[in-house]
Amino acid sequence: MTKSSTPAYSAPATAMATEIAEQPQRLAQLLRQAEDGTFARAAAAVDGQRRPFAVIAARGTSDHAAIYLKHLLEVKLGIVVALASPSVFTVYQRTLRVEGALWIAISQSGGSPDLVEATRSARHAGAFTLAITNAADSDLAGAVHLALDIEAGPERAVPATKSYTSELLACWLLVEAMAGRDGEAAAALPERAETVVTAPVPGDLVARLSDANRLLLVGRGYSFPTALEGALKFVETAHLAAQGFSGADLLHGPIGAVNAGDPVLAIVPEGPAGTSLLPVLDKLRAADAHLTVVASGRPAGFDGPLVQAGEGLPEDLAAITQIIPLQRLACELALARGLNPDAPRGLNKITKTR
Amino acid sequence: MTKSSTPAYSAPATAMATEIAEQPQRLAQLLRQAEDGTFARAAAAVDGQRRPFAVIAARGTSDHAAIYLKHLLEVKLGIVVALASPSVFTVYQRTLRVEGALWIAISQSGGSPDLVEATRSARHAGAFTLAITNAADSDLAGAVHLALDIEAGPERAVPATKSYTSELLACWLLVEAMAGRDGEAAAALPERAETVVTAPVPGDLVARLSDANRLLLVGRGYSFPTALEGALKFVETAHLAAQGFSGADLLHGPIGAVNAGDPVLAIVPEGPAGTSLLPVLDKLRAADAHLTVVASGRPAGFDGPLVQAGEGLPEDLAAITQIIPLQRLACELALARGLNPDAPRGLNKITKTR
Repeated sequence: MTKSSTPAYSAPATAMATEIAEQPQRLAQLLRQAEDGTFARAAAAVDGQRRPFAVIAARGTSDHAAIYLKHLLEVKLGIVVALASPSVFTVYQRTLRVEGALWIAISQSGGSPDLVEATRSARHAGAFTLAITNAADSDLAGAVHLALDIEAGPERAVPATKSYTSELLACWLLVEAMAGRDGEAAAALPERAETVVTAPVPGDLVARLSDANRLLLVGRGYSFPTALEGALKFVETAHLAAQGFSGADLLHGPIGAVNAGDPVLAIVPEGPAGTSLLPVLDKLRAADAHLTVVASGRPAGFDGPLVQAGEGLPEDLAAITQIIPLQRLACELALARGLNPDAPRGLNKITKTR
Repeated sequence: MTKSSTPAYSAPATAMATEIAEQPQRLAQLLRQAEDGTFARAAAAVDGQRRPFAVIAARGTSDHAAIYLKHLLEVKLGIVVALASPSVFTVYQRTLRVEGALWIAISQSGGSPDLVEATRSARHAGAFTLAITNAADSDLAGAVHLALDIEAGPERAVPATKSYTSELLACWLLVEAMAGRDGEAAAALPERAETVVTAPVPGDLVARLSDANRLLLVGRGYSFPTALEGALKFVETAHLAAQGFSGADLLHGPIGAVNAGDPVLAIVPEGPAGTSLLPVLDKLRAADAHLTVVASGRPAGFDGPLVQAGEGLPEDLAAITQIIPLQRLACELALARGLNPDAPRGLNKITKTR
């Protein structure tokens, strides 16, 4: 159980830091919501075994939740998942053949017109449509057969933090329910998140990143979206040119551009994906990169700096806590660089793309 | 018709430059191959209307061809396309529900073990499997129901160039045939490619990129894979931290990190996707980025530097010529930075990921 008192995290009073610190409570609340059978009912309505495939539509941070959900549906249920290109609907007005398929739209605000339009088109074409949003009265939630509310509360900072981890947990709860399981395996999640939220942010890492021109993040499997979402936080919040890669894709080209001393953050879950990252870590060490590992424990043969996150969690759930130190680093780095993490230049909370 | 004589392009004698210059002939050769009905027969075997959906598996450069093919199949035929995560098969040994679906693996070498393994698994699970490779006797070509050979000839430089444009054309020819059309619309392609291959590389742009710490590339629709593939060329060849974005995703975060003077290359096709990029160009100008446009002509309201490519081609085919100036810039930039574009540090021609 998470504590109901104010968390101990004492970063400057930005909305972003406050919302990062809120995550353990928000996750606990979503788990309580699950106890009333919301996700079991959703799973019954979704009827995954009857769906030939699934399509997920999302943008920005929610697109990283979409990649996580794709991985869950494919690995746990064998359901093929396509990530939608909204431009097919909105730029080309094309109707896809989605009859009988499962269509899932993920959006914090539920307000992006391209997602709403693409989702209406998919429903019209015979898909079963589901929305995962933080806005039960949004256009998107109103457009679908079934809307799930992540109940993360209002998010005031432009960089999404608590809505991301709540989206991940909602996705996880849905797929667990589709697999006929209750959400019991996540019972320890809020407490683990609390540990991560209150751990010290490594000051030497913030200092190193302050001087960096670029940052690579690498993950695999369940930690691949963590690498992408971490990179987006650093880009939008701290204006650091950060890029996330899967370990396999890194070896197909970008590894060659890694210079001695370049900072790299590797997100290493326990389990098969983490094991498959070990040769990537070897290559990064061979390139003399400055490698920091975010993991539940020290990977075999690695004696460099370690940011502990995900302890005691299976790799699918570890994705929910492993993003937290990256959110905190991005927020601290923004402040160290004299930037306002809550309102990055040129961004609005709801991006109305078409 | 393309000329059969040696092209006029006079860059230093690297394999990469030679292979870039070969592209018009390779494209012409593939079009001749198409005249014998190869793609019409493939389309009949594929039987797209009977497939509930398609899955494409690829890595690195070929993954950008996969994104192009996804766009073609979705926009022209309405067939939903999932991009495969090979790790689902190789790291988790999961069998996906792909019975009756169309499975397409794209690989220059046909030798990446994860692709071969995932493709075998998909065939075993009842998918119709197709390979698009530059190696007719590869493991991948031997593992599928039907293999298409892009006939690009041996590619010696590690950064893929001619195999990429030949993959794109093979994808285009397949989808045209699936739509019941011959490849006639591409007749002018080799000649247009010849124009792009022999045009001068803008020296001031090479100089500007020599001093740059990072580079953004932006596209949309058919030019989105061009942005990704262009970025990969700059990363792997010239060790420049380049990132490709779709215009819509750029507005969902990374636009905020664009600083005054930052170099940005926008690939603007004619047609709906190009039109949808115009507001993105406005935002980049508002951020005072140093914007260079790669396009078939000058976009409305843009009076900055223009690299002409794709002239007289519809937007789907323009993707095949618009990558060429980016390949050439990356090669020139590598030489300007004292790097060997043919053999980037840390990379092999065949990447054996699992």
